[in-house]
Amino acid sequence: MPAIHQLRVELPGHHYPIQIGTDLLTDSASFASYLSGSRVMIITDTTIAPLYLNLLIQALADYQVNELILPDGEQYKNLTTLNQIYDALLQQRHDRQTTLIALGGGVVGDITGFAAASYQRGVHFIQVPTTLLAQVDSSVGGKTGINHALGKNMIGAFHQPQAVIADISTLDTLPDRELSAGLAEVIKYGLINDPDFFTWLESNISALRQRDPVALAYAIQCCCANKAAIVAADEKEAATRALLNLGHTFGHAIEIGLGYGTWLHGEAVAAGMVMAADLSHRLGWLADSDQVRIRALLAAAGLPIKPPALSPTIFRQHMAVDKKVLNGRLRLILLRGIGQAVISTDFPIQALDDTLQACCPT
Amino acid sequence: MPAIHQLRVELPGHHYPIQIGTDLLTDSASFASYLSGSRVMIITDTTIAPLYLNLLIQALADYQVNELILPDGEQYKNLTTLNQIYDALLQQRHDRQTTLIALGGGVVGDITGFAAASYQRGVHFIQVPTTLLAQVDSSVGGKTGINHALGKNMIGAFHQPQAVIADISTLDTLPDRELSAGLAEVIKYGLINDPDFFTWLESNISALRQRDPVALAYAIQCCCANKAAIVAADEKEAATRALLNLGHTFGHAIEIGLGYGTWLHGEAVAAGMVMAADLSHRLGWLADSDQVRIRALLAAAGLPIKPPALSPTIFRQHMAVDKKVLNGRLRLILLRGIGQAVISTDFPIQALDDTLQACCPT
Repeated sequence: MPAIHQLRVELPGHHYPIQIGTDLLTDSASFASYLSGSRVMIITDTTIAPLYLNLLIQALADYQVNELILPDGEQYKNLTTLNQIYDALLQQRHDRQTTLIALGGGVVGDITGFAAASYQRGVHFIQVPTTLLAQVDSSVGGKTGINHALGKNMIGAFHQPQAVIADISTLDTLPDRELSAGLAEVIKYGLINDPDFFTWLESNISALRQRDPVALAYAIQCCCANKAAIVAADEKEAATRALLNLGHTFGHAIEIGLGYGTWLHGEAVAAGMVMAADLSHRLGWLADSDQVRIRALLAAAGLPIKPPALSPTIFRQHMAVDKKVLNGRLRLILLRGIGQAVISTDFPIQALDDTLQACCPT
Repeated sequence: MPAIHQLRVELPGHHYPIQIGTDLLTDSASFASYLSGSRVMIITDTTIAPLYLNLLIQALADYQVNELILPDGEQYKNLTTLNQIYDALLQQRHDRQTTLIALGGGVVGDITGFAAASYQRGVHFIQVPTTLLAQVDSSVGGKTGINHALGKNMIGAFHQPQAVIADISTLDTLPDRELSAGLAEVIKYGLINDPDFFTWLESNISALRQRDPVALAYAIQCCCANKAAIVAADEKEAATRALLNLGHTFGHAIEIGLGYGTWLHGEAVAAGMVMAADLSHRLGWLADSDQVRIRALLAAAGLPIKPPALSPTIFRQHMAVDKKVLNGRLRLILLRGIGQAVISTDFPIQALDDTLQACCPT
């Protein structure tokens, strides 16, 4: 029997488990309680399908299973790919009792979740994240959606899964670069409100990069517990949930500015957190030594600590349409220390300009 | 001051008003309480824009208003048109505090509602229905969505408006055929659970067709009150809300079979209700005399009382993918009397075949 750690996400009117362990994907017991009908549609991508699709189909031998394999990449997280999911569901005559299973990384999870939110006005779905980033971040919390040419995640819904099944065994096949990208979000949780976890990460970053399963299981649990608490307090991001966007407003500008898929999401978030730390430091909110620790940990995780060659103008342009704008005023997540993230509109725009000038090679 | 009748839709965690009256559209007071930010996007269509768009813009003089004019017709209630709304919102940099206003019939209301449900994972919207059908049915209850080539309303969300503002004055410009189509849904409420209203309709159907404002206001209030009660009891259509689909499973097959836009939705529902009555009669559930009354009232409303020339095979094909299928079993709304609709999977399929044979010219 695989070792399973279980957390619960508690929301008004809905709660669901996050299972974390090895060999969960191949165990039919992982799924049985969460399937409402006899039919299942597995959505995965061309990278993950050859590795895990048949194993999952075997675990679901008691169900009537269809599958759909999407092209792999953030650039396919769009309306065209979403429509392929609708096509497949309708062609196979899936009704409202069906369950979608997202087998893959954040892109597969986000688009499958939005398909589940909107197919016949809402069907059940299960997240089976196969990347570190998806296991610690995108699969938990119910944010689903797709990108638009004019902005990332601009179209979507809050739609909670029935369960998240995080099988650590799937990380064995994850490329090093993607493992590092996932570590950016792991480090983010330490920065937001868990200074002890940040300190633990400073000591264990090498073990994580070497995929030590005990270290990975501990880190994933810490991240999911942090995220579950934040989401439970504010499911629809009326307030504190926005803390989870630390580094993301800068990061989204990097992703759009370069074109989706050039930098990985986690890489953009890493550089974005460095920029948020730079701005916080300029405001006198973050000590020099803390800024140094942040850069050092991100670098040790194999992540970029400066943005790519994009001009300040490009940043300003793309940051203004980000969802973190409130009534036309730019809202950023900044740091008053390691483990003390704050939501702020209360900074001089000149300080932001100084950060952009300092961080962006011109 | 216009006369305003106000109802409330009460849902867990959300309630909203339905205002019914004359000259509401041109009165800024109708909107002031329901706009959360300073920005508004009015979505309307090429038929309604020349009639009412400028009046509404004048009433919203205190806000920053953009507008988008969609092509008119059910055939445009699709992903392509939805994407035009996203494009406009992003090009004009609308943020999460914006409010969408749906000015038009059911198509504009459904697609605008789904755009509001999914833009940045959900923004506010207000329904300003300008057809009888939208005033009594589609604008109330929070069902939003678009069509897919393989089925009507297959993509969407439950997303409640901030308010429904039903301005009876806008019915002055409604073509006779669309007025009749709206009356199909009006008659539906009598059939579902309001036999007194059905009797009132038998006496007042001519006054309604002549657009007597007192009769219209009474009928719209009865329908909205009935619908609000049903929606309050079952927002997400887990059970009793399905009663509102009386005539719709047959009706959808007609609309798809002919191609969207050939018959109006209300016309298809009228013929669908006749078919549901025929099946109910075959099962011994509905008296001969009641079946006669149903056909007579629909005919007096100027509605078709038999389906178009589509084969039983076409009906069976399109009814099976309808959302009213539960775990593969066809579920229909049938009648045990006028004002006594029931949800049923409990009928011999042979009886349905007999109805299709009897109603469909071969």
